[in-house]
Amino acid sequence: MIYCEKTVSKAYIYKGKVVNLRVDEVVLPNNKHTKREIVEHTGAVGIIAINEKKEIILVKQYRKPVEEILLEIPAGKLEKGEEPIECAKRELEEETGFTPLNLKKIVEFYTSPGFSSEKLTLFYTDRIKRTTQTKSDPDEFLDVVTIGLNQALKMLESGKITDAKTIIGILIAKKQYGHLLERG
Amino acid sequence: MIYCEKTVSKAYIYKGKVVNLRVDEVVLPNNKHTKREIVEHTGAVGIIAINEKKEIILVKQYRKPVEEILLEIPAGKLEKGEEPIECAKRELEEETGFTPLNLKKIVEFYTSPGFSSEKLTLFYTDRIKRTTQTKSDPDEFLDVVTIGLNQALKMLESGKITDAKTIIGILIAKKQYGHLLERG
Repeated sequence: MIYCEKTVSKAYIYKGKVVNLRVDEVVLPNNKHTKREIVEHTGAVGIIAINEKKEIILVKQYRKPVEEILLEIPAGKLEKGEEPIECAKRELEEETGFTPLNLKKIVEFYTSPGFSSEKLTLFYTDRIKRTTQTKSDPDEFLDVVTIGLNQALKMLESGKITDAKTIIGILIAKKQYGHLLERG
Repeated sequence: MIYCEKTVSKAYIYKGKVVNLRVDEVVLPNNKHTKREIVEHTGAVGIIAINEKKEIILVKQYRKPVEEILLEIPAGKLEKGEEPIECAKRELEEETGFTPLNLKKIVEFYTSPGFSSEKLTLFYTDRIKRTTQTKSDPDEFLDVVTIGLNQALKMLESGKITDAKTIIGILIAKKQYGHLLERG
């Protein structure tokens, strides 16, 4: 039997640009009170974008929280009031210079529901067009790289791809679109 | 060309039980300064545990940050100084009452590297033994459920499983162990 947790109080510790932090006091099913530390996030999108060579487009960037350069699918945070599909189009353009001509939602998930409210929506596109200019976020520095699906799977297995949304995107691309992504 | 971000200062906003929050000032490659909001997390594990009926063991629990009841693989946070494999054994026992007789590390990933340092290690076990008692965390209330691999895949596709580590676990179980998990 699952019970919800009744909220007694909410206290904001921090309101930031990317996250807010609050600590809620809740009542448990045994009537004990406890605290829950909650990182509020407005949500994000990721895009599995396939080019005309049937390669996946990835971005390489330094991630300060983990102090490593990671290889990830293009992704970004929802702006206020923005629909996930609009965000996917904007982020793909900003990060790679490609505009998607189709976008299919393939999965939605919580990245770390034990402490964070972040929900991530993944999209798939296999029709992209290079636009004349990229409108990169001035605080983002990244490289665009392209790899085949089988190479992506090998990099996942050997620990060279370590980002959750990218792993989910590659595994779903293999499962749902693998037959379309074989290269001659 | 990727550049790392040089840290100018670190300021702790909050130190909690599950997360710490700090804001770093960094220098970008263009010499501009910017702030990075960083949620520190000690890391976690998840366990894909297969019972004698070739079913996956899942736990259902209320998750306050997303205000929903989620279906997830057994999982938990590393205690101070704890090795991931020890944590996997402890969490499986606490949450389900089963002790793993084997544990194989299958993948490591960052759950949300844009703002969080959390690294999650996934383990696989197909030999479990019911122990006489569960030693559940007094602040955790959960139900144990078991489902076949194909049902898990259907629940993922229909949006009934929405937790990132659980999605990765199910997709990797299908890819690496699918042939062993077919039921007669």
